[in-house]
Amino acid sequence: MKTISYIEDFNKWREEFSFHIPIKVRFAETDMFGHVNNVFVFMYFEQARIELLKKIGLFQIKSTVDTIPIVADLQCDYINQIYFEDQLRIYVKVNQVGRTSFDIHYLAVNDNDEVCLTARGRMVQINPTTGKPVPFTDAIKKELQSL
Amino acid sequence: MKTISYIEDFNKWREEFSFHIPIKVRFAETDMFGHVNNVFVFMYFEQARIELLKKIGLFQIKSTVDTIPIVADLQCDYINQIYFEDQLRIYVKVNQVGRTSFDIHYLAVNDNDEVCLTARGRMVQINPTTGKPVPFTDAIKKELQSL
Amino acid sequence: MKTISYIEDFNKWREEFSFHIPIKVRFAETDMFGHVNNVFVFMYFEQARIELLKKIGLFQIKSTVDTIPIVADLQCDYINQIYFEDQLRIYVKVNQVGRTSFDIHYLAVNDNDEVCLTARGRMVQINPTTGKPVPFTDAIKKELQSL
Amino acid sequence: MKTISYIEDFNKWREEFSFHIPIKVRFAETDMFGHVNNVFVFMYFEQARIELLKKIGLFQIKSTVDTIPIVADLQCDYINQIYFEDQLRIYVKVNQVGRTSFDIHYLAVNDNDEVCLTARGRMVQINPTTGKPVPFTDAIKKELQSL
Repeated sequence: MKTISYIEDFNKWREEFSFHIPIKVRFAETDMFGHVNNVFVFMYFEQARIELLKKIGLFQIKSTVDTIPIVADLQCDYINQIYFEDQLRIYVKVNQVGRTSFDIHYLAVNDNDEVCLTARGRMVQINPTTGKPVPFTDAIKKELQSL
Repeated sequence: MKTISYIEDFNKWREEFSFHIPIKVRFAETDMFGHVNNVFVFMYFEQARIELLKKIGLFQIKSTVDTIPIVADLQCDYINQIYFEDQLRIYVKVNQVGRTSFDIHYLAVNDNDEVCLTARGRMVQINPTTGKPVPFTDAIKKELQSL
Repeated sequence: MKTISYIEDFNKWREEFSFHIPIKVRFAETDMFGHVNNVFVFMYFEQARIELLKKIGLFQIKSTVDTIPIVADLQCDYINQIYFEDQLRIYVKVNQVGRTSFDIHYLAVNDNDEVCLTARGRMVQINPTTGKPVPFTDAIKKELQSL
Repeated sequence: MKTISYIEDFNKWREEFSFHIPIKVRFAETDMFGHVNNVFVFMYFEQARIELLKKIGLFQIKSTVDTIPIVADLQCDYINQIYFEDQLRIYVKVNQVGRTSFDIHYLAVNDNDEVCLTARGRMVQINPTTGKPVPFTDAIKKELQSL
């Protein structure tokens, strides 16, 4: 496999994932080249990320919540093409936890156990009104590090 | 052309449109059958509808607004397939104005002047907190009827 | 519930469904009004429809296939708003089978067993090269009627 | 502005863009956090990229074509949030041209001239049947370098 800046040792990197969600490719996500369009994979990542964050209470959608996690950056490597009939497993893990942000890594594997995508991206916790970053509480930070 | 329940006389119906927006088909909106996927045309309609409603102040996105227009029903007839290179004109007009709702009709034409889609749908004005319909003011009703 | 042209007796209509797929609302499918955007429900219908058609071999994606089913019309009634956390069941059934086309009816129910959407639409079998309708074989017709 | 690995001197980097397309944010692209969802910006990039590639004949959709450009990787930095009313300019330029692939850089600016997104990604020319990379002709390579 080609060199990917955020993966040092692929086998080790892969072994560190434990959480995943299943994703069934939707027909509307294919394009006229016959495969899944490059855009929709970010929807798969979003779903996997949200499921992970919900486990530690970091993704709440009540109007009383005064912080939201937003995407600061995202990067994806397309290793093998994804097709309509594919049944994917989208793995996610938290990588580096900072004061107001953390990295999430992603891995998409198809039913033949082929790696289709690797990805990473930084999430920042902000106050939706001011748009400013908000530090995590110690409890949340501990939870993030445990993922 | 086939019979469409909401169109009595097609030529007359078509002549009543005056407002339209241009839509350029996006690659991600095609599917593996090589044409535009049936789902995305509703995004075109939404854009055209919003541009029309903005003209009369019925589409506001400030948080101070206490009513929003939502879709009660939608129906679309696919007359000619739409392809990636197509440049569409999406026509919209208001049809029947009621106490809390109104009908919008849609027509999509490609650059060869072929009819690709006809559609209609009812919008209801609701209070987003209660979900209940809210009657239009007389001023808004007059504006709607003028469209 | 309001009158819907394609539903005579709602309870009877509902009882006739047996096949369904689960749909988990994706975050990207919500819009700034806080609910699921009206466009994405057609993606749910497409998924349910394809799963149903695959059961009788009517949805094939091999390049050797010389007919494809395409959408001739679609209509959806939005009964109750759908929200991010909702887990939906999308029911589908074949309604009227013609020489080259058939109707599909749809019903979306949330985890509180509330009806969120009802819908219908006609599918036509065409030759993708000529764009012309192609009659079903007797075997396929029988299968469609059994759904 | 924060450090971005693919941008050495931001002002110089920005000046090198000349081609851009306008993008009008669609309502369906917002999410319940009130801004444009992180996924849809990749659709904007795709549109800008295709318009650029069409200028040099690298994006053809005829069935006689035996190579297609596909996305090998993509990375995006979200600098300022994008909102529904925003009118964006999506700038694109070709950066490094290799034997079978090249880099494209992206910049999204809103109507207040604020930088909303910066991005880059590698495109590879492949044979759609074999999936293998195909070297560019000298003529295409020269064209790419001129962008």
